Amino acid sequence: MDTMTDTAVLETAPAAALRINGERLWQTLMDHGRIGATAKGGVCRLALTELDRQGRDLFVQWCRDAGMQVRVDAIGNIFARREGSDPTRAAVAMGSHIDTQPTGGKFDGIFGVMAALEVVRTLNERGVTTAAPLEVVAWTNEEGSRFVPVMMGSGVFAGAFTLEHALAASDAQGLSVAQELARIGYAGVQTPGVVPGGMYAAYFEAHIEQGPVLEAHDLVIGVVPGALGQRWYDVTITGVESHAGTTPMDLRGDALLAAARLIEAVNRIALQRAPYGRGTVGHLQVLPNSRNTIAGTVQCSVDLRALEDADLLAMQEDLMACVAELQGRNPRLHIAVKPVVYFPPCHFDAKCIASVREAAAGLGYQSMEVVSGAGHDAVYVANVAPAAMIFVPCKDGISHNEAEWAEPAHLAAGADVLLHAVLRYAS
Amino acid sequence: MDTMTDTAVLETAPAAALRINGERLWQTLMDHGRIGATAKGGVCRLALTELDRQGRDLFVQWCRDAGMQVRVDAIGNIFARREGSDPTRAAVAMGSHIDTQPTGGKFDGIFGVMAALEVVRTLNERGVTTAAPLEVVAWTNEEGSRFVPVMMGSGVFAGAFTLEHALAASDAQGLSVAQELARIGYAGVQTPGVVPGGMYAAYFEAHIEQGPVLEAHDLVIGVVPGALGQRWYDVTITGVESHAGTTPMDLRGDALLAAARLIEAVNRIALQRAPYGRGTVGHLQVLPNSRNTIAGTVQCSVDLRALEDADLLAMQEDLMACVAELQGRNPRLHIAVKPVVYFPPCHFDAKCIASVREAAAGLGYQSMEVVSGAGHDAVYVANVAPAAMIFVPCKDGISHNEAEWAEPAHLAAGADVLLHAVLRYAS
Repeated sequence: MDTMTDTAVLETAPAAALRINGERLWQTLMDHGRIGATAKGGVCRLALTELDRQGRDLFVQWCRDAGMQVRVDAIGNIFARREGSDPTRAAVAMGSHIDTQPTGGKFDGIFGVMAALEVVRTLNERGVTTAAPLEVVAWTNEEGSRFVPVMMGSGVFAGAFTLEHALAASDAQGLSVAQELARIGYAGVQTPGVVPGGMYAAYFEAHIEQGPVLEAHDLVIGVVPGALGQRWYDVTITGVESHAGTTPMDLRGDALLAAARLIEAVNRIALQRAPYGRGTVGHLQVLPNSRNTIAGTVQCSVDLRALEDADLLAMQEDLMACVAELQGRNPRLHIAVKPVVYFPPCHFDAKCIASVREAAAGLGYQSMEVVSGAGHDAVYVANVAPAAMIFVPCKDGISHNEAEWAEPAHLAAGADVLLHAVLRYAS
Repeated sequence: MDTMTDTAVLETAPAAALRINGERLWQTLMDHGRIGATAKGGVCRLALTELDRQGRDLFVQWCRDAGMQVRVDAIGNIFARREGSDPTRAAVAMGSHIDTQPTGGKFDGIFGVMAALEVVRTLNERGVTTAAPLEVVAWTNEEGSRFVPVMMGSGVFAGAFTLEHALAASDAQGLSVAQELARIGYAGVQTPGVVPGGMYAAYFEAHIEQGPVLEAHDLVIGVVPGALGQRWYDVTITGVESHAGTTPMDLRGDALLAAARLIEAVNRIALQRAPYGRGTVGHLQVLPNSRNTIAGTVQCSVDLRALEDADLLAMQEDLMACVAELQGRNPRLHIAVKPVVYFPPCHFDAKCIASVREAAAGLGYQSMEVVSGAGHDAVYVANVAPAAMIFVPCKDGISHNEAEWAEPAHLAAGADVLLHAVLRYAS
């Protein structure tokens, strides 16, 4: 097995610093990854299924083995607590999620949970007691594959939506979150959002990047300043369906040509907000979709993202200006734009971010800022507690895929940074 | 019924010229349109079906009633002959097709056949005998909806492909052209391409335009200089499927963005060959086609048309230059272009074209050149005989649609022009 061979990463680190056990972390991930393992090397462990129960049970067992007290709240979030030496201190939390996509990988979510467990195991081994209590958290249904809304457990914890709304959500078979939580034994009694000793002093989440930036820069640690805000739209372009041979170019109302110009505009709009602007048309449907008929209708998505709300609004204005220009240019076209999703941008806590950056530097890891383009539990937790994230690279930036892969040495580095970021808050 | 009300068309015509009977032509079209009539006002009369047989039988009956001799050739083409006064002259032919699209209209094809019949009826009525024989032709399976190749009867007649190839073609149920011709009683004994007294001196086909040009110019007669050549391609763009949130703009291999640029280029390439250049992407498929995933693969069609072969080749070169530029701009993209269809351009006979133009002028109709962007039987016939076409407007340029509509006065005008173009050759 290809473990701990990345000497380029290790050789720059000071020898004296406290370290997690990288081989144990890797073995823990591999052992846990057998629950829901797929033939192609991935994991299918949908939220609140029997496999999720098994994944939770094993995690809870390992937490108890590490001497922690386990609580479960009413939305099924699991909190494993290691008490500190100072009973007046609020806890420092770390974690992520156990559930996966239907064709998910062995690292998305579970890495953040097992890295947190490894931090506790390391402290146990070295006999280190922190002043503040530590909590290892596994949030319910982050992926949203089986039940929406996504990031359900952390969303209820942070008050983004109500417990009742989440419990009433049902899957494609009509089974509700409430029913399934009870069935797998994780309908807890704790009130979501209430933490013994008061809300967390800080929350840290380690996660694979799920993008290509760290790999492209050949770096191992990403310091995450925040998560991009998102505005999604459904666009319907209505033109004039007509014969590709008999209709001269100047008498056309070509809906696909208009869509092409919209796609180019979305790209330009994002590039103008570098480095954090994103603009994507990923879904597009043509009617009648025949090679010798000019498209009469095109339906497509637009996905705009930015780290500042003002940028996101300016991007929306640019989009609407493009639509007006396309319609003005050809009166045979009508373009309807329907907003369908808005997530505000998230800025993580400056002090938490600095802790991650300094922890990495203290261990000799060169880091860079990598914004989160996707949602994470930390984004909701940031609404109620100081929070930050630590990214490690994943091969080719691939995630939500059975081929998802992260190097053992990179995962160990991420857990080391988590350890030292937490120690800065908990000592 | 809205018959013969377009006085603006009629008032400019000299009173003295010989005229067809517009009301009889309209009634004939409406009577014939009952065979295969659809609830939405269209016609479904697929080639070599029972309804096609009924349509053929009625046409043959009407031809016999008009005193013509009927022959059928081995591919089912029907030739109705009216002898002339000079037995040394080659016949002058006119016609089109009886079959329709599955959701076809009441005018596509059948207008050219019934206009030809109306010419003969008018000559009978006025006691006019032409020097050259006249033939009214109904070509088998022009539409190609049930059997390919399209324009089958005229294609075999002109030697574009063999009789054996056409007879072996089968429909979705596995029934062959040979079987179906025999079943409906139209497997004739005549050798395709052999005409009594030698190949036609000229062939004229009246047809609805199936495009918007005449309507846009508010004109009733289109003089058709030829038919556009066509080059069709299947294009596959392979990029990198990745997350719309986590992948920065500069690390993308967005197959749909590349497709958008290709669509814009195809449009520009056609505009550079105005007025007869055409360029269309009508079919496009995105994979995985998810709103927050950058498209990994796009498959699309490209349809290029021009009236000169040199233009068509230059357009292909421009297309390939665009593909090379797109690949050079982003090495994450691979673009494969596969040619799938080539039809050479067709130039109709200059003298036949002039006859149409002069016939229109003689009747007081202002005409314009309208190139045929679609295929027609006349395009194949032009390979073996001097040929030309007469276009009349159809409402909103719509054809291959049950909503297809042509004004009675416009159809009468087209038949009048057919009459006089034929008389110029047959007298």
